[in-house]
Amino acid sequence: MSAPFKTIGVIGGGQLGRMLALAGYPLGLRCVLLDPAPDSPAGQVADVITAPLDDPAALEQLAAAADVVTIEIENVSVQRLEWLQGIVPVHPPPAAVAAAQDRLLEKQLFRSLGIPTAPFVAVDSASDLEPAARALGWPVVLKLRRLGYDGRGQRIVRDAEALAAAWRELGERPCIAEGWVRFERELSLVAVRGADGALAFYPLAENVHRDGILRTTVAPYADGALQRSAERYLAAILERFDYRGVLTVEFFHTGDRLVANEMAPRVHNSGHWTIEGAETSQFANHLRAVAGWPLGSTAPRGHAAMINLLGRVPPPERLLAVPGAHLHAYGKSPRANRKVGHCTLVDADRDRLLARFRALQALVEAET
Amino acid sequence: MSAPFKTIGVIGGGQLGRMLALAGYPLGLRCVLLDPAPDSPAGQVADVITAPLDDPAALEQLAAAADVVTIEIENVSVQRLEWLQGIVPVHPPPAAVAAAQDRLLEKQLFRSLGIPTAPFVAVDSASDLEPAARALGWPVVLKLRRLGYDGRGQRIVRDAEALAAAWRELGERPCIAEGWVRFERELSLVAVRGADGALAFYPLAENVHRDGILRTTVAPYADGALQRSAERYLAAILERFDYRGVLTVEFFHTGDRLVANEMAPRVHNSGHWTIEGAETSQFANHLRAVAGWPLGSTAPRGHAAMINLLGRVPPPERLLAVPGAHLHAYGKSPRANRKVGHCTLVDADRDRLLARFRALQALVEAET
Repeated sequence: MSAPFKTIGVIGGGQLGRMLALAGYPLGLRCVLLDPAPDSPAGQVADVITAPLDDPAALEQLAAAADVVTIEIENVSVQRLEWLQGIVPVHPPPAAVAAAQDRLLEKQLFRSLGIPTAPFVAVDSASDLEPAARALGWPVVLKLRRLGYDGRGQRIVRDAEALAAAWRELGERPCIAEGWVRFERELSLVAVRGADGALAFYPLAENVHRDGILRTTVAPYADGALQRSAERYLAAILERFDYRGVLTVEFFHTGDRLVANEMAPRVHNSGHWTIEGAETSQFANHLRAVAGWPLGSTAPRGHAAMINLLGRVPPPERLLAVPGAHLHAYGKSPRANRKVGHCTLVDADRDRLLARFRALQALVEAET
Repeated sequence: MSAPFKTIGVIGGGQLGRMLALAGYPLGLRCVLLDPAPDSPAGQVADVITAPLDDPAALEQLAAAADVVTIEIENVSVQRLEWLQGIVPVHPPPAAVAAAQDRLLEKQLFRSLGIPTAPFVAVDSASDLEPAARALGWPVVLKLRRLGYDGRGQRIVRDAEALAAAWRELGERPCIAEGWVRFERELSLVAVRGADGALAFYPLAENVHRDGILRTTVAPYADGALQRSAERYLAAILERFDYRGVLTVEFFHTGDRLVANEMAPRVHNSGHWTIEGAETSQFANHLRAVAGWPLGSTAPRGHAAMINLLGRVPPPERLLAVPGAHLHAYGKSPRANRKVGHCTLVDADRDRLLARFRALQALVEAET
């Protein structure tokens, strides 16, 4: 077998790892992934080492197989990543992963870089609850500092009694309390920084969540001033960490400004539209960055709209009957609210795109 | 592991099989391929049965694993394909493959469907040579009826002595002699026919060959009248065979008309630009057709230019430094004139595309 140009080790083998592996093959890059599940989405398209994500022997095996190691999930042991750096180059840097794992560190990072956030205070014990609410006003959003995702590990609370109950429900573990941000929409920016420090930014995308889970993304969200703000914010984070690879920040758009909500040190669901909707996908650009190769253009190709497929993939012949529909199935077995795939439409004309997208959404909602 | 929606068996595991497999994964389609080489390009991205293409046990194994069987190479045993049809659906139909394998049957097919060809006569023995030359005039193109590809198995001959020598060089095997067609350019059309008989046509593409090997393709070649002619010709072939899948015909453009040169009952090198340059790639559409799913749009997305990488893949970091360059490496070891990858540029503006493409060509020629 002909050797690939480089082998990329990826910690995590979910759909993001699967799409990284698929983006790698044309570039002559082979991904080897690490995932605890024997039936991971990535395992159907690439070699996967089946072991816990923090298993030292498995990580050593991954490092031995790879020229460089990256992640497709942020909930990995930072300590292990730091140790791994002694064996093999690791991108992005563990310090950026550490900040993304902890909502308090993350907000403190944003603040230190002049990036607007919701008002926040740390809640380490029950006695911090009342002062937090006093400082922030109602409603308060109480979030676990660590290991929350897709809306899990957080509660919106409207009075002192509910706040105490939320604290108990969240396991009385370290939390961050945030003031409520009244926002018009949610936007995200996917950025990438290359080995040479080159920066590239995709256009802002507009996201709709329901029950804490991303449902749809429409891009570009064309607003020059907001785009410039968002790029400045992400550039600051990328530079702070001497970052290499893709970084995503989710924002609230409120009034004429952006308020940073959270960051992901990896390719992101709100960037899936870039596969068909941009010159270079977020997956290809992440690989190009970690491989030390020049970045590709992040320019959009028309307008794109993406819908997540939750629970189960509708019959493909029905999805593909929608003009312009591009299906991405992740090879997952069905389960309520599980992200099992996504579907993207692209069109040169935004209004026509949105009309078609409404039809696609109706179909997806009827079928999943 | 979650079951794919369908498993597609593919006879052949070269770069076309590799790109079919990669196009299948997002659609939830798994390809299993059959190839004699233990290090085939497809084997790096999908499961491959390693055996000769006509090995009955291997074909049975392929049929057992697959919901439908297709091909990525036309030089497969038609007899075996017919036998395989008794076990599993096979697309495209063996009769179409038979016609594409034999340059005489192919030309007779074109003629029977009213598709213009070069004048031709069969050459079965040395005694046919002189009458052939008399009928066709000089120069004569003498081609083996079977197993020629990439310019192999053919000779352009200018006098009787050279004709006899060519006949000997080609092994005194059944040939077709063709009259010389003075052409302005070579064009090809990639078409696809779905399970429901739906037809879709990509725009004409302009191809440049050197030493019988495709070097570059630029698409679309925008000429409404030629496009209509080409579509009519391919529709006739597709209907004749009740064809399902992708079919490609290469034409000479001479004066104001197209002269059919040869057909390929499969995805084609001159359609690689569709990966980035069309709404739906030829690979995805072939799979959608053989899976019995609706076809995707064949509309171009701007202008595209593709260059084959022959011999070896230039350093990726140099290729990817060309703005807009998309690399497709096939995972092949280097060998003179071997197709080891291709590179595609897309741009909304044709002139800008061609300027960038000249830079890419210069780089590729310097590096391979």
